[in-house]
Amino acid sequence: MRTVYVNGAYVPENEARVSVFDRGFLFADGIYEVAAVIGGKLIDFPAHLNRLHRSADELGLRVDASNEELLAIHRELISRNGISEGVVYMQMTRGVADRDFAYDTDSMEPTLVLFTQSRPLLETSTSKNGMSIVSVEDIRWGRCDIKTVQLLYPSMAKMEARSRGADDAWLVRDGMVTEGSSSNAFIVTGNGIIVTRPLSNAILPGITRSALMSYAAATGTRIAERTFSIEEAKDAAEAFVTSASVFVGPVISIDGVELSGGKPGPVTMGLRKTYITESLKRAN
Amino acid sequence: MRTVYVNGAYVPENEARVSVFDRGFLFADGIYEVAAVIGGKLIDFPAHLNRLHRSADELGLRVDASNEELLAIHRELISRNGISEGVVYMQMTRGVADRDFAYDTDSMEPTLVLFTQSRPLLETSTSKNGMSIVSVEDIRWGRCDIKTVQLLYPSMAKMEARSRGADDAWLVRDGMVTEGSSSNAFIVTGNGIIVTRPLSNAILPGITRSALMSYAAATGTRIAERTFSIEEAKDAAEAFVTSASVFVGPVISIDGVELSGGKPGPVTMGLRKTYITESLKRAN
Repeated sequence: MRTVYVNGAYVPENEARVSVFDRGFLFADGIYEVAAVIGGKLIDFPAHLNRLHRSADELGLRVDASNEELLAIHRELISRNGISEGVVYMQMTRGVADRDFAYDTDSMEPTLVLFTQSRPLLETSTSKNGMSIVSVEDIRWGRCDIKTVQLLYPSMAKMEARSRGADDAWLVRDGMVTEGSSSNAFIVTGNGIIVTRPLSNAILPGITRSALMSYAAATGTRIAERTFSIEEAKDAAEAFVTSASVFVGPVISIDGVELSGGKPGPVTMGLRKTYITESLKRAN
Repeated sequence: MRTVYVNGAYVPENEARVSVFDRGFLFADGIYEVAAVIGGKLIDFPAHLNRLHRSADELGLRVDASNEELLAIHRELISRNGISEGVVYMQMTRGVADRDFAYDTDSMEPTLVLFTQSRPLLETSTSKNGMSIVSVEDIRWGRCDIKTVQLLYPSMAKMEARSRGADDAWLVRDGMVTEGSSSNAFIVTGNGIIVTRPLSNAILPGITRSALMSYAAATGTRIAERTFSIEEAKDAAEAFVTSASVFVGPVISIDGVELSGGKPGPVTMGLRKTYITESLKRAN
């Protein structure tokens, strides 16, 4: 049985509980981060902490734990649960109060929950065979740049994709791809340029997105940050997603249209290799 | 100390907890209802149950408890907590599973939580003095007709209103009022017509909204369901909100513009009286 961290205590997962008055449960008033673990070490951890603080600032949430404490909890859970490959999930909410839309952050203790999931990240079916994508309308709220737990629609979009026989969904607003249900979306043009949507309130500022772009730029890869339509994506040479746990995940079809011969594309797989190599060098 | 209902058990409020793996906590994958209590009896209860089932259907949530069981739990909590005036809050989530955007509803036990809040509903400062409203941009998701716990933005809007010295916010999309942060929005025109936005994915199908409109129509009040702009609202003779716990709440200013002389308007107060009288007749 896993050990889970809840508000200062390490407890068995079946005893890991929060109050029903937690604003995370009643109002989705919480934020989260997911950090990958490879060989027992955390990938891109400082960037995840930076984004946690940014999300907290945007919502006026208090982060009482120091970065050193948060790192120590991550490491303790990795150790206690013997995680070699997998993820550490961290969620913070505004805390517990009798139910009221209005809140007084200062009077509350923020809730902090962390748990691990052990699973293969390097050798996966997705990385070997690629994934099929269908487009789903993006009807999420206007601040998708904040990593909140308001994940009902991304969840529904993933289930919609599954029901249509695909692996995952890309969200489309006004005909333009915003991002994946839990990833950033990329295409590779015929002349080898990597295209991804620029940061805005419409998408999450992905940690893997940012790190990959910096590694790719360093090797001379041309990158264009611009919006692209779902039609352009279907005509692309290759497509892929980035996320903290998928890293770089090849897309082999979009709305039934095959890309790169229905196999992971060479540019994508090169970027995957670059990302893994470079991020492992910097692992915590 | 209140008694709270959690998954079949009546427990003291400080022991009322859910798993950190509850999808309500991790994904905002849950729905809720709030029913008013006056004189120990439930207001508009059958309509709240109907809407709960509608929300559940839209999300593919299972409702395992029967309507009779849900009513019995409401009554038991009202009795145990000695609620004469107040509300009963009921939340249902898809249940507990290891964290994954994808879900298998059939393999999960839905989570059911209910608690009470004792507070005056009939004689309130709002009903006597009215409330001041400011407009805030509506950036919520595209399915506001489903009563989910994705309430972060309504919460933020209410806090934004408070920070601007007002009591509450009305949400405005493309210049047109959608609804209040936790209420439906109405105006009264110079010739006494009640105007409120028609039902769509953009607003919650309010129980009080619907009941009031039916009571008002029965007394010959003219009602127009059409969109109205925030500018039209500022020029209106009166304005008010409806919600399960406010009933009919007079609005006395919008974005600093006084309505009906800065006092609750006569049409509004007549409707409030009608609503309370009629709904009490039908109380459970």
